[in-house]
Amino acid sequence: MAENSKLNIGFVGLGSMGMGMAQSLVRAGIPTKAYDIRPEAVATFVEAGGTGVGSVAEAAGGVDVLIIVVVNADQAEDVLFGAGNAAATLTQGSVVMLCSTVQPDYARSTAARLEAMGLGMLDAPISGGPIKAAAGEMTIMASGKPALFERLEPALSAMAANVYPMGDDCGLGSTMKIINQLLAGVNLAVSSEAMAFGARAGMDPEKIYEVICASAGNSWMFENRVPHILADDYTPESAVDIWVKDLGIVLDTARGIRFPAYLAAVAHQMFMMTSAAGHGRLDDTAVVKMYEALMDFKVVNKETT
Amino acid sequence: MAENSKLNIGFVGLGSMGMGMAQSLVRAGIPTKAYDIRPEAVATFVEAGGTGVGSVAEAAGGVDVLIIVVVNADQAEDVLFGAGNAAATLTQGSVVMLCSTVQPDYARSTAARLEAMGLGMLDAPISGGPIKAAAGEMTIMASGKPALFERLEPALSAMAANVYPMGDDCGLGSTMKIINQLLAGVNLAVSSEAMAFGARAGMDPEKIYEVICASAGNSWMFENRVPHILADDYTPESAVDIWVKDLGIVLDTARGIRFPAYLAAVAHQMFMMTSAAGHGRLDDTAVVKMYEALMDFKVVNKETT
Repeated sequence: MAENSKLNIGFVGLGSMGMGMAQSLVRAGIPTKAYDIRPEAVATFVEAGGTGVGSVAEAAGGVDVLIIVVVNADQAEDVLFGAGNAAATLTQGSVVMLCSTVQPDYARSTAARLEAMGLGMLDAPISGGPIKAAAGEMTIMASGKPALFERLEPALSAMAANVYPMGDDCGLGSTMKIINQLLAGVNLAVSSEAMAFGARAGMDPEKIYEVICASAGNSWMFENRVPHILADDYTPESAVDIWVKDLGIVLDTARGIRFPAYLAAVAHQMFMMTSAAGHGRLDDTAVVKMYEALMDFKVVNKETT
Repeated sequence: MAENSKLNIGFVGLGSMGMGMAQSLVRAGIPTKAYDIRPEAVATFVEAGGTGVGSVAEAAGGVDVLIIVVVNADQAEDVLFGAGNAAATLTQGSVVMLCSTVQPDYARSTAARLEAMGLGMLDAPISGGPIKAAAGEMTIMASGKPALFERLEPALSAMAANVYPMGDDCGLGSTMKIINQLLAGVNLAVSSEAMAFGARAGMDPEKIYEVICASAGNSWMFENRVPHILADDYTPESAVDIWVKDLGIVLDTARGIRFPAYLAAVAHQMFMMTSAAGHGRLDDTAVVKMYEALMDFKVVNKETT
């Protein structure tokens, strides 16, 4: 507690990931004041023992580190340089830890702008999902100056089971996150493609799952997500529209360096089709529902008895 | 030994999978005579303690079970009903175990033709690669009459660590194999896409591998194959052209039931591009070499010192 209290943290963005991260800091005894655009999220954080504030400026005032866990680059821009104007509020020498999934070029230019104002930055995308975030066991793939990693160490170890330093250059953390999203997004979309194909070809979906989990076709996404399909339950754990966004960032980045990312492009279109069919806010396995609607059949028949 | 000697086995096709399977039978004390079109493969089998024969007819004569591990349906057709004419040679009541990756409809029609001749059939595709085949630890996903599974049990357990019965209907085993190949082929192609993309974006390939193996983007294929890319060694363990063939079978089957398999179709084109660039016989991670040639760069720079 004594050592951790050396860090004072401001936190912006108490969404499905941010809430767990901010609460993990509180559990570790690190003073943390947090803001979210939704007052009810701030209230939940206060109930968990944290300090709630009513604006970005209040979150950024007098802290050593400002952790930003908003949805995208537009929101991060607004927090730092727009309506929130946190960059102007932060004390010289303090550090911004940007956790949103953004284009590497955005991470680079943000770091340069902050540096010109005497502020440090860690380009620190996160992975692992809400459950691991709540447990303080998520993964952080970060880039930035080694001294910043050292300074933020108590906060990083409170929030994450694994911290992968990707190098000094802000942008490398975001690049690593984008590579992960490319793989995860395609592995997820093909899991739905394979389950719909198998069911259409007359296979028992439960048997497909059992065999694939023990075979070369397995993936983290297949094993983790296909149970949602088997339960015919599309309550969102992570939504289709997250992949419309994240694979969009992958493709924007790939276009920027003239890299033809065939499979990412097709998976993106599959999530877009699913969103276009009205399922954007359902669980990200709902690509199956796009196939079901297209061919008027059910992958899993749950009898209501 | 006493019980196993009740089964007499004929074996056709001593390729990278068949050789290990046939030798596993010999190790288990099951009398096995084997034929391959390449006399040197038969000689290797004889050195390992098996019985070699000089024709399909000799392999099929007087056995209880004929195991066929040839490359595709054309070769299986030739063995059973063409030049080999094994179906006419086999004793009434004996069983054909067809392990090649074929279209489910081909497995169904073959079973029907064999049944009309008084012969049983197990539609029994295999998975796991040459190393597991050699160790008798591969996976068999099979369909056919339950009595046939019982009768072949000593042979199945000698060759495989896992036998998944998919149902009575010949065709279901092949469908399961095709679903696995769809997933494995796309997961493999996207592994190369992501590694080439990451390297092109300035990431250290070794770091990509380390982080992804612990993240949501991981897959069996990524973890198993990317070390070949990191070693910049495209000596084939499994070749690009295997995927041109297998994803071709996936797409033919999908077309037959009017199922739009987007990702399988794109992955197939990526393996086709790689084969068109002259790399069809290289390791199946050589999709990376297609990207390297396209953009005139190297994903991994191995210094020759």
